[in-house]
Amino acid sequence: MNKLKQAVWQANLALVDHGLVVLTWGNVSAVDRKRGVIVIKPSGVAYDAMRPEDMVVTDLDGTVVEGKLRPSSDLPTHVALYRAWKEIGGVVHTHSMYATSFAQACRGIPCLGTTHADHFYGEVPCTRVLRRAEVEKDYEANTGKVIVERLAGTLALQMPAAVVANHGPFAWGKDAADAVHNAVALEQVAQMAINARQINPAVKAIPAYILDKHYLRKHGATAYYGQK
Amino acid sequence: MNKLKQAVWQANLALVDHGLVVLTWGNVSAVDRKRGVIVIKPSGVAYDAMRPEDMVVTDLDGTVVEGKLRPSSDLPTHVALYRAWKEIGGVVHTHSMYATSFAQACRGIPCLGTTHADHFYGEVPCTRVLRRAEVEKDYEANTGKVIVERLAGTLALQMPAAVVANHGPFAWGKDAADAVHNAVALEQVAQMAINARQINPAVKAIPAYILDKHYLRKHGATAYYGQK
Amino acid sequence: MNKLKQAVWQANLALVDHGLVVLTWGNVSAVDRKRGVIVIKPSGVAYDAMRPEDMVVTDLDGTVVEGKLRPSSDLPTHVALYRAWKEIGGVVHTHSMYATSFAQACRGIPCLGTTHADHFYGEVPCTRVLRRAEVEKDYEANTGKVIVERLAGTLALQMPAAVVANHGPFAWGKDAADAVHNAVALEQVAQMAINARQINPAVKAIPAYILDKHYLRKHGATAYYGQK
Amino acid sequence: MNKLKQAVWQANLALVDHGLVVLTWGNVSAVDRKRGVIVIKPSGVAYDAMRPEDMVVTDLDGTVVEGKLRPSSDLPTHVALYRAWKEIGGVVHTHSMYATSFAQACRGIPCLGTTHADHFYGEVPCTRVLRRAEVEKDYEANTGKVIVERLAGTLALQMPAAVVANHGPFAWGKDAADAVHNAVALEQVAQMAINARQINPAVKAIPAYILDKHYLRKHGATAYYGQK
Repeated sequence: MNKLKQAVWQANLALVDHGLVVLTWGNVSAVDRKRGVIVIKPSGVAYDAMRPEDMVVTDLDGTVVEGKLRPSSDLPTHVALYRAWKEIGGVVHTHSMYATSFAQACRGIPCLGTTHADHFYGEVPCTRVLRRAEVEKDYEANTGKVIVERLAGTLALQMPAAVVANHGPFAWGKDAADAVHNAVALEQVAQMAINARQINPAVKAIPAYILDKHYLRKHGATAYYGQK
Repeated sequence: MNKLKQAVWQANLALVDHGLVVLTWGNVSAVDRKRGVIVIKPSGVAYDAMRPEDMVVTDLDGTVVEGKLRPSSDLPTHVALYRAWKEIGGVVHTHSMYATSFAQACRGIPCLGTTHADHFYGEVPCTRVLRRAEVEKDYEANTGKVIVERLAGTLALQMPAAVVANHGPFAWGKDAADAVHNAVALEQVAQMAINARQINPAVKAIPAYILDKHYLRKHGATAYYGQK
Repeated sequence: MNKLKQAVWQANLALVDHGLVVLTWGNVSAVDRKRGVIVIKPSGVAYDAMRPEDMVVTDLDGTVVEGKLRPSSDLPTHVALYRAWKEIGGVVHTHSMYATSFAQACRGIPCLGTTHADHFYGEVPCTRVLRRAEVEKDYEANTGKVIVERLAGTLALQMPAAVVANHGPFAWGKDAADAVHNAVALEQVAQMAINARQINPAVKAIPAYILDKHYLRKHGATAYYGQK
Repeated sequence: MNKLKQAVWQANLALVDHGLVVLTWGNVSAVDRKRGVIVIKPSGVAYDAMRPEDMVVTDLDGTVVEGKLRPSSDLPTHVALYRAWKEIGGVVHTHSMYATSFAQACRGIPCLGTTHADHFYGEVPCTRVLRRAEVEKDYEANTGKVIVERLAGTLALQMPAAVVANHGPFAWGKDAADAVHNAVALEQVAQMAINARQINPAVKAIPAYILDKHYLRKHGATAYYGQK
């Protein structure tokens, strides 16, 4: 458990190092499905004061089983994603500048280049706006619900991020570090997409054969990027 | 008193750490209503040379009662805000990039997402342009006057910031640190609003039920964000 | 002389600290009119390797009188400004991002707010494009010539900067540190002006009475900003 | 060989210091034509963990001759450039924000000012989009091919960069450090070009006589910028 707390703590600090977090606006969690636990950042705690032992442990329903602090208020969103997708091991939520701007614009992030294609297999989707009843009751769980609904028919690890309309980005991955990696990439491609459209308003999504090439050379069965 | 000087000094340095201040363009004050004193940054002093004991102490009319340096030239604006709103304890003024850009555009900052709704209960208002007579005499006090005038009918702690037309942002809060917190949030949401409108020029303010939910989960009687 | 070299060296490093310089794209000089010398940064030397004793000393015609390194290739521009305006003591040239963008757009930087008015008494002018003959012969001196020509009828210390069409900004001041201060302010107001126009394309220059108030409270005979 | 590994390692770290690299998205190589070897960054290795001895050595066909790690997956692009242009000694590839945005917009970077003219002798070209067959087989080599094709008739050291459509920038130079220098300049002029067009949508390329002057004063037979 201490190892998982350490990993989640480091992943939360990595968000700060990558400039994705202002004040306390971000959280990372990870799941250990064998033990049936989620480890998540405590709510509203300053990053520089946070220690590995401050991480909160819950069961897969989000009930706290260890830790003196409250879990992040976004915990029910994390829970919803872990329950929907058995293949993911870490979830990140931030209010990072450019991905959040797409969320506020209620627009997905178009795939305009290979930086995007290296990480996301197509346009990063934007959810629908939550309905009044979904906001007033079980808001955070419903935030997870609309993400899962929007990703229907897509492999979660092939599209490891979405932006929630009017809110901001969530990203996920094999584990906490991978989820952070995807959140970092998401922020970059969001900013690049704004710029590219400013330079050329008629710009279109990249050809499918380039998307396939880039996504698959990093993630396919015959990947040849990186070591081993 | 030393405690309040220390808090105001730290809040001024926090402005720099958060990237809201270039050169000496910013100031923070705090009030101790029991003692009837305001503590404020001295005028035009470099942040890295500034010590807690350099903070200037005035009475609630802005008359210096302690300190060898001149107070910030914006002191009369701070005084006007403290006199108008008994519930606030700290005031911040900066020329931070994006909030100042809205001020220069003579436009309020629209509430396009939950980052905004977490801190400001609706559009952050822009004051009217000051009239010639208001500028030529008691300019700084009149700057406070148009802010108070613009906020009429609004709870100051529910809308803890405004941008002054042609000038820049002021933010406030329960104390100096809270005012800084709001100034940081303001700068972020200002930049996000520019981006969101660039992505989707037709973007509208978020639904009222989302604004209510976010503002109230952090600030309402039944707030559940953060610890305790 | 060592004192002036030290001041020029520090001013050059301050450009880097303020983020105005990439690679070696910037230079600061200062003049000592009593001794009849200019001290300027050497050409194309890395900032972190530069020492005070590397500064180059020239006479008021730009002829090197001390130092083993070549002076900045922009020296003749600095010389032209010192000769035209007896009241200035320091000159800065950078390729800072936003001021240079205005130069490349062949546009002056409009006065849209008090941040601008605190430093520049109206729109920061853009020079005309240099003619072929002016470029092919005595290019750097002619760069100074078009700046001086453009400022005709203006007090150099009331408008302590200009952007050279297709090129970039020059700023000046009472001494090297003051020139750097103005270069920093210039970069900020350039970026703010782009943003403000994006927010409100119809934005206009601030009213003259606000310009007067801000400029004069910092620079007029009855200035009351800062200490003493 | 150790000297070249050291130089390539330092050049890779310089990319990070200049803010051109996020995560592991960048690589630098250098060639020693006498020994017939290329030294290049290993693939997908974190910059802060990388040591000079981790650099991979290949022959001029890109076959690894020394090193335990896999070379950057972009190696075949580097090889294609070294084979086409005997005068270059270093190659850089990044996904830097603004140059990549032009690549994603499928647009060259126009020469709008002297910052650009100091480094690139005219518009930095954008390649055509690679065809399906070029992507599916020998993709990285074909990326080099379209760059070389696009530069046909141009001296590689007079136009030491190009952006690959839908992908990102490549830059080159006399050696690894010079290639990094050009990649840094490219990113700056890309951002300036976006800004300049926002300020003045009608902005045109600079006059040929200014381009000639600036390019040649730094790179011509009678260059007079820098030391000696």
